Amino acid sequence: MSLTEVLNRICDVDMEVAARTQRRLDRLTKPQGSLGRLEQLAVQYCAITSEGKPAVPRGRVYTFAADHGVVDEGVSAYPRDVTAQMVLNFLRGGAGVNVLARHAGVEVRVVDIGVAHDFGSVAGLINRKLLMGTRNMVQGEAMDRRIVEEALEIGIALASEAVKEDVTLIGTGEMGIGNTTASAAITAVITGASVEQVTGLGTGIDELGRTRKISVIERALARHEPNADDPIDVLAKIGGLEIAGMAGLMLGAAAARIPVVLDGFIAGAAALIARGLQPRSVQYMIASHRSVERGHRLVLETLGLEPLFDLDLRLGEGTGACLGMSLVQAAVKVLTEMATFSEAGVSERNQ
Amino acid sequence: MSLTEVLNRICDVDMEVAARTQRRLDRLTKPQGSLGRLEQLAVQYCAITSEGKPAVPRGRVYTFAADHGVVDEGVSAYPRDVTAQMVLNFLRGGAGVNVLARHAGVEVRVVDIGVAHDFGSVAGLINRKLLMGTRNMVQGEAMDRRIVEEALEIGIALASEAVKEDVTLIGTGEMGIGNTTASAAITAVITGASVEQVTGLGTGIDELGRTRKISVIERALARHEPNADDPIDVLAKIGGLEIAGMAGLMLGAAAARIPVVLDGFIAGAAALIARGLQPRSVQYMIASHRSVERGHRLVLETLGLEPLFDLDLRLGEGTGACLGMSLVQAAVKVLTEMATFSEAGVSERNQ
Repeated sequence: MSLTEVLNRICDVDMEVAARTQRRLDRLTKPQGSLGRLEQLAVQYCAITSEGKPAVPRGRVYTFAADHGVVDEGVSAYPRDVTAQMVLNFLRGGAGVNVLARHAGVEVRVVDIGVAHDFGSVAGLINRKLLMGTRNMVQGEAMDRRIVEEALEIGIALASEAVKEDVTLIGTGEMGIGNTTASAAITAVITGASVEQVTGLGTGIDELGRTRKISVIERALARHEPNADDPIDVLAKIGGLEIAGMAGLMLGAAAARIPVVLDGFIAGAAALIARGLQPRSVQYMIASHRSVERGHRLVLETLGLEPLFDLDLRLGEGTGACLGMSLVQAAVKVLTEMATFSEAGVSERNQ
Repeated sequence: MSLTEVLNRICDVDMEVAARTQRRLDRLTKPQGSLGRLEQLAVQYCAITSEGKPAVPRGRVYTFAADHGVVDEGVSAYPRDVTAQMVLNFLRGGAGVNVLARHAGVEVRVVDIGVAHDFGSVAGLINRKLLMGTRNMVQGEAMDRRIVEEALEIGIALASEAVKEDVTLIGTGEMGIGNTTASAAITAVITGASVEQVTGLGTGIDELGRTRKISVIERALARHEPNADDPIDVLAKIGGLEIAGMAGLMLGAAAARIPVVLDGFIAGAAALIARGLQPRSVQYMIASHRSVERGHRLVLETLGLEPLFDLDLRLGEGTGACLGMSLVQAAVKVLTEMATFSEAGVSERNQ
């Protein structure tokens, strides 16, 4: 499906099913509303899927990996090679996202959408490489507009494949040394906040490093003047391939009426892009956690999403998304497995 | 084991193992500290158990049920019969705690420590009934001092049995119509806060009901003047049997060096009692969530515990504890299943 077709297909979620779901929750053996956010999650899940009695969701996290030319400016605490090394770690099952995905009972798919390394043929890797990493945004545009569109369509196609494979809950993850720099740049452009306000320590630079990172982003923005009303222009000038891929995945999931659980700051930047292309896509998003990364709070506020938890995470990969997907599964089980007052012979409240 | 023996046996957690665990976490393929609270949980788990490479915890939630004479004062939105009805719902697996325990892969044990109903012989119920509910605290003391000690020792004995059955993670839950009234009374006495400050809407009374509930608690406190420095006096005068049972369970778990995951406000009141009897017991506690119930924030502050999440829960039963136990399991898996930098051949950070 083309990007335009997908954007046109995304509709509002089903508020009639939402109301019916809340009525069922109110008949379960608990004071009304006493399971708080879990009840809201169940309602959102049903509204998205239009299913009143859904099966326990089958979840899958897509971890998009790509490199960033801007790493040449010394914006990261880790060398660029770590992107490719971590891809291999994902494929062997030894990374944080693997452990938490197994814990949550969800699958991990690793997508090379632009890692600066030739993996040859390696089992389990989804090869959708568009470039050997983006260009350095300080020297030129990160990528061509056409590449952005291809990256979005890769995410869209992966969402379609997931649907065919009976996946009913999608999580977003990423790996890319340098990608908090691209995400901070995107966040500054789309929210209008200052670069200083949205630039954090990433994988662990110090305050001096952060000052340099801010200056790098400010130079890139001054050079390119990305158009906040044109998300593809923003991605082309200062974005990243994994960010574009995640944005496409979010749009594809929304078009297929599947909920998408967002990981942290970088997924949040991708969500800002998806929202720019189709504001209704946000109705399909669930924010798992609030990251330590400085700009994430503003991203979530801009999206109008309240995260499920705040565990001081800042790893990325999809780790927070896995924990969030486990809560979505729990919410669906509450809806479908709890007894009602009448089934259990429990008295209702005093009038 | 007697209460006195247990209190003497509770020692400080193992800070040497804690330091060793943090060093191992720092060698795993992630920026140091980037899994935030999960890393802290892994460190606490190892410090409590003195195990450097623990197995995935085997978890069990104990849901203590009891009735409260103070319900005669009209403090609850639900009739007293609901306590017994919900016990049967727990045994059939249809309640919130059953669903979330199955989700988290932990067991539920239901303990009748003082329900005002004769269950006869019913499969799965642990019968430790001490009374057919407490007395109305406005009319007299809730229970005799000797009964409090027996209830504490029941909790202690259950913890010992759990250890023998290879349980390595305990959760606390409760059911008792009227028990937010007893918990608010305990919290006011132990923290010195005003009754108004710590009294909430329980299962769903309105503001008029809350005013009545506050007045009931104030009358009970004025009548009995519980001694905040004598937790057994507090429980005898204004407590509840399930609260005493949970406090005993917490102490027994601490003596056996097993972590205890606290549910919400009522478990928090029990934790204040456990702390009063042995301050070191708090080192063994993990607060799962911050409840909507008004007094819980102050309880957690007094205990010095930061909850893992805030999902607007107010159901009790052990529902929040189940979700917290799932995170403890996740934390242990991070520690033991993630690859190190050298195992995975991933470059460490730039110097």
